[in-house]
Amino acid sequence: MPTPRTVVVTGSASGIGAAVAERLRDQGDRVIGVDRAGGEVVADLSTPQGRAEAAQAVLDLAGGHLDGAVLCAGLGPMPGAERTILEVNARGVIELLETWRPALAAGSAQAVLIGSNSTTTTPFVSRKAVRETISGDLDRAERRLRPKKMAPPLAYATSKLAVSYWAREQAVRPEWVGAGIRLNVLAPGATMTPMLREQLAGPQGRAVRNFPIPAGAPAEPGELADIAVFMVSPAARAMVGSVVFADGGTDALLRGDHAPAPVKARQLGRYGAAMVKFRRR
Amino acid sequence: MPTPRTVVVTGSASGIGAAVAERLRDQGDRVIGVDRAGGEVVADLSTPQGRAEAAQAVLDLAGGHLDGAVLCAGLGPMPGAERTILEVNARGVIELLETWRPALAAGSAQAVLIGSNSTTTTPFVSRKAVRETISGDLDRAERRLRPKKMAPPLAYATSKLAVSYWAREQAVRPEWVGAGIRLNVLAPGATMTPMLREQLAGPQGRAVRNFPIPAGAPAEPGELADIAVFMVSPAARAMVGSVVFADGGTDALLRGDHAPAPVKARQLGRYGAAMVKFRRR
Repeated sequence: MPTPRTVVVTGSASGIGAAVAERLRDQGDRVIGVDRAGGEVVADLSTPQGRAEAAQAVLDLAGGHLDGAVLCAGLGPMPGAERTILEVNARGVIELLETWRPALAAGSAQAVLIGSNSTTTTPFVSRKAVRETISGDLDRAERRLRPKKMAPPLAYATSKLAVSYWAREQAVRPEWVGAGIRLNVLAPGATMTPMLREQLAGPQGRAVRNFPIPAGAPAEPGELADIAVFMVSPAARAMVGSVVFADGGTDALLRGDHAPAPVKARQLGRYGAAMVKFRRR
Repeated sequence: MPTPRTVVVTGSASGIGAAVAERLRDQGDRVIGVDRAGGEVVADLSTPQGRAEAAQAVLDLAGGHLDGAVLCAGLGPMPGAERTILEVNARGVIELLETWRPALAAGSAQAVLIGSNSTTTTPFVSRKAVRETISGDLDRAERRLRPKKMAPPLAYATSKLAVSYWAREQAVRPEWVGAGIRLNVLAPGATMTPMLREQLAGPQGRAVRNFPIPAGAPAEPGELADIAVFMVSPAARAMVGSVVFADGGTDALLRGDHAPAPVKARQLGRYGAAMVKFRRR
């Protein structure tokens, strides 16, 4: 029998994270769950100190060796929570993974971040706010969440674009793929989690209900967990910096022939520069 | 014990297709292999008649019921093969799946098409050629493969964009997802198949060798097969019209923050129209 793998799961107490933790335990993995309550590590991912403490507590429990990480902790687009959304959904992923990097390298780990199809369906997102969220300047990022009425979904999409781009940009670097770590993103659409139930009951309930889902209904958390469990397994090792949409077809409906996008002439310089830089490293 | 699933695999005699067929048989599925030689169905996918015959032969063997389809048959970007590339890689996928649709619906099937990271890395692809390939007007599409020197990689990328967009546009329709069928795309990068070996030995060998792979080396066919086998399983049902890159990081390296792309203001009309059309159906 192989040694059980050690996998950290954030947001392990509810929704997709709970379903992931359950499946991993059922298949014999050791799961270190992180949540506000009910995890092996009780954490507040909304502050730098809370994130640092949570990251360290996981390292202590893991003995410095992680085979996998699935980062599901996140808040939905609720009014008034804009800053917390950026803190938890983006910084609560980036800072944890950066702290865990040596432990992930020790395990040649697979890491799965949770993106969202809101990345390609939310209008008026500021690319500057996304870059600022990646670099940690949340004060500036927060001020760009305009129009004010749309601040909650803008904060949400900004946080999910930030983790998606961060994952893709870091994944290909010597410190990550070069150290045997795979970073990939699972991008759900509407999924019947406590987060979605809260949205359906909130001021945007009608808009959420009217959002098109070609599959006919929101996914169950277990359906997303099935995909996350595959992506955190070594069977997914050919994927590096990939974003896997699993949204019942919403993204495909809205921009079927916009992705994958062919190279535009004005991108060629950028592509060439990336190739040259890559060859030199 | 559950009834074995019946899964059709094209290109089953070599490369990724052979590895997929082997894994499916190992897990107890019944595989109907299609190839130029060495499959249960011997087929020439480069002509309309060959495709019609192959599609019918599969239906006869399957008794009108398919649980899955993995369409791996395809040619690499070799000089002089441009028309055959469009025929096999695009029409050899679209026409087969259209013929198999009732059988796939009977099995609530998962279908996996093989795309490519050439879709996002090949310059000078004509969107018109892609649309013409989807609609079957290969004479026109072929004439757009310019500059002439680049015709082979242009034919290849055009064929793979055509199957990717076709899959995304069809996947969300009542005839497909509405009938319980999932269409998704696996997009490999450099993979150590007979196709890649042929390219490395050909006139573009140097360019192929210099193409950046952050993971360090081309993937093995079995690594892509691991992902295809997952995607053709019911565990992937939340994915509809998704394109899963599994390319060792090449796409992420070249356009890390270009995908997923946020909505542009000029796309909003298109999004709105798609939503209205969806609500009416």
